[in-house]
Amino acid sequence: MIAGLPEVVAKPGLPPEVTIWEVGARDGLQNEPGTIATDTKIELINRLAAAGLPVVEATSFVRPDWVPQLADAAEVMAGITRSSLTRYPVLVPNTHGLERALQAGASDVAVFASATQTFARKNLNCDLGQQMERFEPTVAAARAAGARVRGYVSMCFGDPWEGQVAVGDVISVCEELTAVGCEELSLGDTIGVATPGQVQRLLADLSGSVPLEAVGVHFHNTYGQALSNTYASLEAGVRTIDASAGGLGGCPYAKSATGNLATEDLVWMLTGLGVRTGVDLEQLVATSVWLAGILDRPSPSAVVRALS
Amino acid sequence: MIAGLPEVVAKPGLPPEVTIWEVGARDGLQNEPGTIATDTKIELINRLAAAGLPVVEATSFVRPDWVPQLADAAEVMAGITRSSLTRYPVLVPNTHGLERALQAGASDVAVFASATQTFARKNLNCDLGQQMERFEPTVAAARAAGARVRGYVSMCFGDPWEGQVAVGDVISVCEELTAVGCEELSLGDTIGVATPGQVQRLLADLSGSVPLEAVGVHFHNTYGQALSNTYASLEAGVRTIDASAGGLGGCPYAKSATGNLATEDLVWMLTGLGVRTGVDLEQLVATSVWLAGILDRPSPSAVVRALS
Repeated sequence: MIAGLPEVVAKPGLPPEVTIWEVGARDGLQNEPGTIATDTKIELINRLAAAGLPVVEATSFVRPDWVPQLADAAEVMAGITRSSLTRYPVLVPNTHGLERALQAGASDVAVFASATQTFARKNLNCDLGQQMERFEPTVAAARAAGARVRGYVSMCFGDPWEGQVAVGDVISVCEELTAVGCEELSLGDTIGVATPGQVQRLLADLSGSVPLEAVGVHFHNTYGQALSNTYASLEAGVRTIDASAGGLGGCPYAKSATGNLATEDLVWMLTGLGVRTGVDLEQLVATSVWLAGILDRPSPSAVVRALS
Repeated sequence: MIAGLPEVVAKPGLPPEVTIWEVGARDGLQNEPGTIATDTKIELINRLAAAGLPVVEATSFVRPDWVPQLADAAEVMAGITRSSLTRYPVLVPNTHGLERALQAGASDVAVFASATQTFARKNLNCDLGQQMERFEPTVAAARAAGARVRGYVSMCFGDPWEGQVAVGDVISVCEELTAVGCEELSLGDTIGVATPGQVQRLLADLSGSVPLEAVGVHFHNTYGQALSNTYASLEAGVRTIDASAGGLGGCPYAKSATGNLATEDLVWMLTGLGVRTGVDLEQLVATSVWLAGILDRPSPSAVVRALS
């Protein structure tokens, strides 16, 4: 603790290790108001991998006119120094994006589904019932090319337009994503409203359809709930946690969706709980301090602020 | 959720209701760099009580030359409009402070102990072994006057000078406070380093000496851990949670101790969990927005930022 680490006291029943799925370079930077230099993105990804993060989501092959912050996706993929210990997934919205991603050397991709009708229309520009028609050929082609495929599900715990989201709707989308070939899922609390009982209910119900070993959770800290929901997820058996270095990020199409769970705050808790992550907290904090300097604003991560 | 409240999904095993011990008017304002007008303090306390908080810690009868921000303690106590539904505890460092508090009409007081030698010397200006000599006559006189007495214990989970704090040392101080007559305790993570396993270990060990119905927890959010530690405490059987409206506060004698758990973020989680608090979140947020305007800086509470 004196050395910038918490005392270790294990809690019975938690997994001995978890995989942190680092989304800062993609989910964080895509929401930046300004343009980040491609070299900065490359350095960020390389530093995150060097800090021991096993999964560093690198970029998104969406239409550059939709998300101009990520128009340099191919250059980023070409520029990073790949570690054999790290996966570098990228987002692909459709078969065209997948082709670009595969050409850029991606071997790990993700599609982005919605649990609600309104968000499907706003974010995907299609009806809820049509999103799988788009994903099915994308996932099939990705699998045929040997890529691993993750399916994101957004608005799992509430929707800014629709209010409460039925658990059954979330599970249906999860089952559909699994049926079309997604090997992993990520349940997103896109607007950050969830609380621990709600999280554990969804995970318990979902575990009847999908093994929780294949399920990650993705919490936003809009209402300060991200870390307690993460802890509740660990209790429920989840072993993959999405987080964003320095707490960067949000969602460009949902006004109230600000701030991912900060990776540093997550690593502090997991370290204290004796759950292995492989992450070097000091290197990670140094990376977020460096990026905060480039973005010219303080990191929202409490650990980054406390240790810098 | 649409209306600014989370969906309610209970978690089995948690208490049906908890007492939020609001410390913002004391722990929050004593750390303000500038002077807050007495009328502002009075309005804050009245608004917090009106928002349904059952305990509103009002001020501290410490030496005015030590904590000049609270030199108007008697004026604050004389100025507030007392609700029969609310307790208004005040801090008393010694018999002299207690006399002033009782003269000001306090019927609920608290003494402030340390779990570590270094902090006892710095904060109390005495050796660890001597603190009870000071508290014993204070608590006895308070009880004789019919007051309820809480004993705070600071540095329960780590000390910025000593590092790790032995669980046995914390329990010893808790037992001593109980022995001299404290009816309630509050375990403070003064520098915010704790994690859930550590919290549950202390509570489990302490429950052999002191019933957890008489134990509150007081977490700082320095490393972003306050709410998950609170959740872990609820799981362990704690029913009293200290929090600070808008997340104000810290500790003037421990540099790294910044930011109490924000009451609004706590209320969001408890509301979602179906745990009754009696607090009107909308009124509480309005109060913190009003205070942030007077202090001229944004609230560190995520809920306050999201809902204002």
